[in-house]
Amino acid sequence: MTDLRVLPVEGLPEVTKGMKIGELIAESAELEPDDIVVISQKIVSKAEGQVRRLQDVEPSERAIELAKKLGKEAELVELILSESREVLREDRVLITETHHGFVCANAGIDSSNLPEAGTVCLLPADPDNSARTIRAELRTAIEGQGVGVAGPSPLLSADPHPLSHPAVVISDSFGRAWRLGQAEVAVGCAGLVPLDDWRGREDSSGRELQATVIAIADEVAAAADLVRTKTSNTPAAIVRGLGQYVKAEDGPGAAALHRPPGEDLFR
Amino acid sequence: MTDLRVLPVEGLPEVTKGMKIGELIAESAELEPDDIVVISQKIVSKAEGQVRRLQDVEPSERAIELAKKLGKEAELVELILSESREVLREDRVLITETHHGFVCANAGIDSSNLPEAGTVCLLPADPDNSARTIRAELRTAIEGQGVGVAGPSPLLSADPHPLSHPAVVISDSFGRAWRLGQAEVAVGCAGLVPLDDWRGREDSSGRELQATVIAIADEVAAAADLVRTKTSNTPAAIVRGLGQYVKAEDGPGAAALHRPPGEDLFR
Repeated sequence: MTDLRVLPVEGLPEVTKGMKIGELIAESAELEPDDIVVISQKIVSKAEGQVRRLQDVEPSERAIELAKKLGKEAELVELILSESREVLREDRVLITETHHGFVCANAGIDSSNLPEAGTVCLLPADPDNSARTIRAELRTAIEGQGVGVAGPSPLLSADPHPLSHPAVVISDSFGRAWRLGQAEVAVGCAGLVPLDDWRGREDSSGRELQATVIAIADEVAAAADLVRTKTSNTPAAIVRGLGQYVKAEDGPGAAALHRPPGEDLFR
Repeated sequence: MTDLRVLPVEGLPEVTKGMKIGELIAESAELEPDDIVVISQKIVSKAEGQVRRLQDVEPSERAIELAKKLGKEAELVELILSESREVLREDRVLITETHHGFVCANAGIDSSNLPEAGTVCLLPADPDNSARTIRAELRTAIEGQGVGVAGPSPLLSADPHPLSHPAVVISDSFGRAWRLGQAEVAVGCAGLVPLDDWRGREDSSGRELQATVIAIADEVAAAADLVRTKTSNTPAAIVRGLGQYVKAEDGPGAAALHRPPGEDLFR
């Protein structure tokens, strides 16, 4: 096992609607084919135009009532409800299941690190698709640079199953049941094995492992969070040294991490 | 921000009761004063004699009944109950709150990576205390080696507030509500700031951050897990580059990560 390194991506510009995150990162970082690029949800949402002005929102009766109960703005509650398929808790905080299937506070909507006051940021509409798009942008940019390859780029070869190129994780901070503090999790990914299933493999004593499925994508998101600060403009990091989880195929994405409601004992 | 590195600690022996984990790690790894040493709960429990033979356990009526319902061994269920202060769910899996205050499956008891069949391993009785003990062992061993210091060791000085020395995290894999896959969390720590509280600080736009407390200890545990494999003998890793969270004082430990039951909406 080689060492793992986590490197912040420095020097990204303030992201606005329409920018190509993959291009920006390829310009700012020297990527290697097996890297995992972890990107804060916030800049992806900004690039995708997922910022809303609260004054443009018309709150429903239900939102007005709930806002009063929770001490929140009715316009914000309206947005949270419209991003959610189910409200799990409305006691002090609003915990919902989003249309994507995430269970989190406020449907993942927040107002930090937005240049304009009175605006909030929604999660990307389809974060796995966002990850695939950014991965394709990275690949195109890397091929254009011919980075990290001696001789003809394997990424340019006619092989229909090209060598791996950087994987992408889109991450966000979620609170957890039972434990204090937020931890970064993967809300989208492409090219990364999101879950590593050890069931059926043997432990060091030769006995079968029973219930070990590791949430690789979430642990990668957590590792990346450690080199960022919430107030700085380092909304992306590179996790290097996990090539065994980086695949040519984009794979199932972070949707694979949703626990099906029927298997979920805590709703 | 410097890079973060995660290095597996190679070459640890099979741990048995009475061994000093801190000494073993100091012999196997070249530590630096700001390192965080992340250690799998399993070897700490083994060293502390927390391994139990199921045939030595006398199951109660309640354990026999519950075991039948869950398809588990009654002796194992008895141990789980005796390690718990409250059963949260007994439907398919047994989710309890342990005497330490962890909410997890099977009170953290498991049978993987144990040399003797028919045995299981409990969590350490007091994982924060275990972390403090291991940290003290590391410190003594490092002082003996004079590692990482030019001239007289600052750790040997008469200063009552000596320079920092490696922090210790004891980690375990916990399942999560709502998300599939286990993620590594801190069950004990010493010398590490477990929670980084950003509330009241300003974001990049100068607005106050509202609800950002980051579970540093859990993210460190997750990062370390990425260089280990569940079947190999690499039950420890070093996380290097987070000196801002490493303190001379042992601090509040991972107990600071328990969400108080009164604030917990998911029980």
